[in-house]
Amino acid sequence: MILPSWLRHYRRADWPHDLVASATLVIFLVPQGLAYALLAGLPAQAGLYASIVPVLFYALLGTSATLSVGPAALPSLMTTAALASVAAPSAAGYAALAAAIALVSGVLRLAFGWLRFGFLANFLSQSVVGGFVSGSALLILLAQLPHLLGVESHAATAMGIVQGLWRHADAFNLTALWLSLAALALLYACKLGLKPLLVRAGLSPQVADLVAKASPMAVVALAGGVVAWFGLPVKQVGTLAPGLPPLRWPDADWSALASIWPAVLAISVVGFIDSYSIAQTLALRRRESVDANRELLALGLANTAAGLTAGFPVSASFGRSAANELAGARTQLAGILAALWMALILLLATWLFATLPLAVLACTIVIAVLQLIDLSILKLAWRYDRREALVYAGTGLGVLAFGVVDALLLGVGLSLLLFIWRTSQPHLAELGRVPGSEHYRNILRHRAETTPQILAVRVDESLYFANIGIVRAQLAAMLNGQPQARHLLLVLSAVNTIDISALQGLRELNRGLREQGVTLNLAEVKGPVMDQLKQSGFLAELAGHAFLSTHVAMTALGSAHPHDYAI
Amino acid sequence: MILPSWLRHYRRADWPHDLVASATLVIFLVPQGLAYALLAGLPAQAGLYASIVPVLFYALLGTSATLSVGPAALPSLMTTAALASVAAPSAAGYAALAAAIALVSGVLRLAFGWLRFGFLANFLSQSVVGGFVSGSALLILLAQLPHLLGVESHAATAMGIVQGLWRHADAFNLTALWLSLAALALLYACKLGLKPLLVRAGLSPQVADLVAKASPMAVVALAGGVVAWFGLPVKQVGTLAPGLPPLRWPDADWSALASIWPAVLAISVVGFIDSYSIAQTLALRRRESVDANRELLALGLANTAAGLTAGFPVSASFGRSAANELAGARTQLAGILAALWMALILLLATWLFATLPLAVLACTIVIAVLQLIDLSILKLAWRYDRREALVYAGTGLGVLAFGVVDALLLGVGLSLLLFIWRTSQPHLAELGRVPGSEHYRNILRHRAETTPQILAVRVDESLYFANIGIVRAQLAAMLNGQPQARHLLLVLSAVNTIDISALQGLRELNRGLREQGVTLNLAEVKGPVMDQLKQSGFLAELAGHAFLSTHVAMTALGSAHPHDYAI
Repeated sequence: MILPSWLRHYRRADWPHDLVASATLVIFLVPQGLAYALLAGLPAQAGLYASIVPVLFYALLGTSATLSVGPAALPSLMTTAALASVAAPSAAGYAALAAAIALVSGVLRLAFGWLRFGFLANFLSQSVVGGFVSGSALLILLAQLPHLLGVESHAATAMGIVQGLWRHADAFNLTALWLSLAALALLYACKLGLKPLLVRAGLSPQVADLVAKASPMAVVALAGGVVAWFGLPVKQVGTLAPGLPPLRWPDADWSALASIWPAVLAISVVGFIDSYSIAQTLALRRRESVDANRELLALGLANTAAGLTAGFPVSASFGRSAANELAGARTQLAGILAALWMALILLLATWLFATLPLAVLACTIVIAVLQLIDLSILKLAWRYDRREALVYAGTGLGVLAFGVVDALLLGVGLSLLLFIWRTSQPHLAELGRVPGSEHYRNILRHRAETTPQILAVRVDESLYFANIGIVRAQLAAMLNGQPQARHLLLVLSAVNTIDISALQGLRELNRGLREQGVTLNLAEVKGPVMDQLKQSGFLAELAGHAFLSTHVAMTALGSAHPHDYAI
Repeated sequence: MILPSWLRHYRRADWPHDLVASATLVIFLVPQGLAYALLAGLPAQAGLYASIVPVLFYALLGTSATLSVGPAALPSLMTTAALASVAAPSAAGYAALAAAIALVSGVLRLAFGWLRFGFLANFLSQSVVGGFVSGSALLILLAQLPHLLGVESHAATAMGIVQGLWRHADAFNLTALWLSLAALALLYACKLGLKPLLVRAGLSPQVADLVAKASPMAVVALAGGVVAWFGLPVKQVGTLAPGLPPLRWPDADWSALASIWPAVLAISVVGFIDSYSIAQTLALRRRESVDANRELLALGLANTAAGLTAGFPVSASFGRSAANELAGARTQLAGILAALWMALILLLATWLFATLPLAVLACTIVIAVLQLIDLSILKLAWRYDRREALVYAGTGLGVLAFGVVDALLLGVGLSLLLFIWRTSQPHLAELGRVPGSEHYRNILRHRAETTPQILAVRVDESLYFANIGIVRAQLAAMLNGQPQARHLLLVLSAVNTIDISALQGLRELNRGLREQGVTLNLAEVKGPVMDQLKQSGFLAELAGHAFLSTHVAMTALGSAHPHDYAI
């Protein structure tokens, strides 16, 4: 295997920075691995397993120097949702199914990367992704409630979670609740106040920020100590067998997996888009670039590895990656070293986690996903185009109402429909001449001169089946308002394509106008469109002419021999 | 009730023309009513019932003077397909279900008309409609094979029909087969050779055409006589009870109907679009106009009436309407009189139809639907844009493979995807100045002058989530090829909308370019787009400026103080 380019060009000066960053990564990976395994409905061990080999493999192929791939909120949530219909988290085959999802979604991404399908990332609009992530974050928050209240309840939809809580209302564990509230208060306080406090105590802002970011590990450790010391009656991680992750083919019910293929496909696609957009954000800061297809391959390999080492779907975590960068990571070596530390911990120190309370792990998830709820896109959408805000809200609420996969389909469907709808109601502008110039502008927006026997209309949309009927009706209405018009001039500078339905519509328009003694003329037809129109024979049928520019057309149509000016 | 306008302004001189046309209509309605009832899996009587009250009601509201609404091929086929999964044609409730479909699809169309949903017709492209009609015609042809071979077999998909024939291979009726072949030969000969023969015999071309068009009635009558005379052992229409259609609420299994709602919706939509496009074709010839929403109401009323008088879904028939016109129909009175003749026939002459062989009725369907297979759109699509040819072929083959409803959804999906795909790969043109003018054109298509420090690019598509990534990548590649460029000028004359994802993409582009010391400038921004860009704050962020025209921009960017020229 060829060494990755960052390793071939490794500079010795980067080594201490990567080492420090790797220690920081471990401080994140331990509580996140435990907590996201919990979110995925898995034993804590799976989260630690997923923090070793996948991390190593991403570093070999990934193009982002600081992206931290491993257990993450979105794929864990989507794994729970995918498995909700086929197995209970307590069932024997559940862990094998989660590993199988990682394996299949990894192989899918390898295939997508090999087929250079990275461009698919473009088909999810910002409104859909924004709504989806915010809705998922809300769903994750809701899913933590059973843990905070110390009850055993697992569901993949908002309704299911609420119903589960209602059913277990008499089993709420008050100790867990008090512990959770204390942990939440502490975590929130650290998030808000620790950094300024440390800065005032003399630390550099960067170190202070890093310590504040690492506070969840301290809170979890503190909670573990308190639970052990006082013997508090709350659900705990329990004894984990020491040892490295096993290398094994997931012994899963593959027919059950086949029945949930849309969810597996969604995990592959969303995992990639989420991870890719985090990588892009990091790259933008460092003025680097990431390659979509390489990222697909790297994520595919990481997930395949997670599936073969008793893990579950992994992806990039924004918080962890940002901390890695803040800690000074220079290259992917930070991730590789972190994986080695994790292996050491699994070999020697799993006894440390036995008394960690699940409720407090859930609290760290609550604090982490709060930052995923990004309303800035929604605010922008509300100001810029309310219909996009509807797409955002529809996708977000869809996650809560119908679950992640259906919400994603709904969002994509809504955003495509919005585009179709937008283009099916085209803007038509009657043009007039800007006095003393060769420019022609919308007479409603500019002071411009018109000629009674010529109606010049700019069509502000490509013509296709969904809008040609409306365009014809609008043109007819405009002609009715200008009965002296002998020539209709369509300015096609904004028409990028004309499909067959629109071509047939233009033919009928041309025929209909000719019978009324009005000629149909075209101006500023784009090159590719002109080629198509010529080839279809439409230009030969045209009662009027095609002109290079609006000005040439207006001059010609005002003269006795317009065909002298035609192209 | 207010009289329809054609009746209020009725001219006495039109009366003999409408009378002759009404007789012609009857000559069509009788065999078609019997045959399309057969196609819909219904007793022959339903076809005659559907030729009375629906015809009357269309005339009251319809805007087309010569359109003949009544039993038709497409709705009959779709009724068979819709009911295939819920009842066998021999089952007791089948006829009631067919009537219920007519009723519901009629009420739906009334509602659509009332909501002014006529514009929905625009959402089916010509390729989809063309492929759908051709595929349906092929399916109808296939569905006639059991009748031509004299076996009882009913299926709604091509595969089902072939399997049915295979199962009944030992029951083929040779008498029916010979009778069919003779009838087909005779019908085909009449269609091709009768008109020239009659013209040579001295008839006027118009009358000869009409007689040739009416030949199916003669062939069916002849076959009925032959079967009665020789007592041929073939399936026959049998005794029909005389009497007018009953007025009754369909006694149907409404829960079964609810389970096939997509098919009922498809019948409503397709029936409308098919009928409306026939009406438009007729109107174009007569220089009249038809109103989509009025047509929806008229068809809705006709189908509601069909459902309440033991009929089945009705629609316009192109062949019958064309014959009506050819026979000289001037107004809707021709249809009304035809309905009255049909009522008389039902009262007095049903005994005439007893010995008509089903095989020969099927032959008339074969000859009639052959003309529905219109490959001209396919040929045009192949020349104009092969991808549209794929939409046509996909929809047509989809009808054979998956049935009518799924094929329609497939076609609509394909045509929308095609539009998205087309707009997701936008054409970018580098612009240069046409020497000595203020015009700027694609340097690949025109002899034009460029300036090394300015890269002017016209974007030939609205910018939105599906293409902004590709546009940015292409712009980056173009800038790499012109390293001296200090200004990037985007000419947005063809950009009709910019969605939020594209706005964010432009922001990142602006930021990235600024770091490379290149300014981003805009020219020829459309009014509505400019409003949105201003409001979003993007114009203020822009490292360069927005200019009214490309020429102003090129002059300004070449000078020391470009901001003097900015809008």
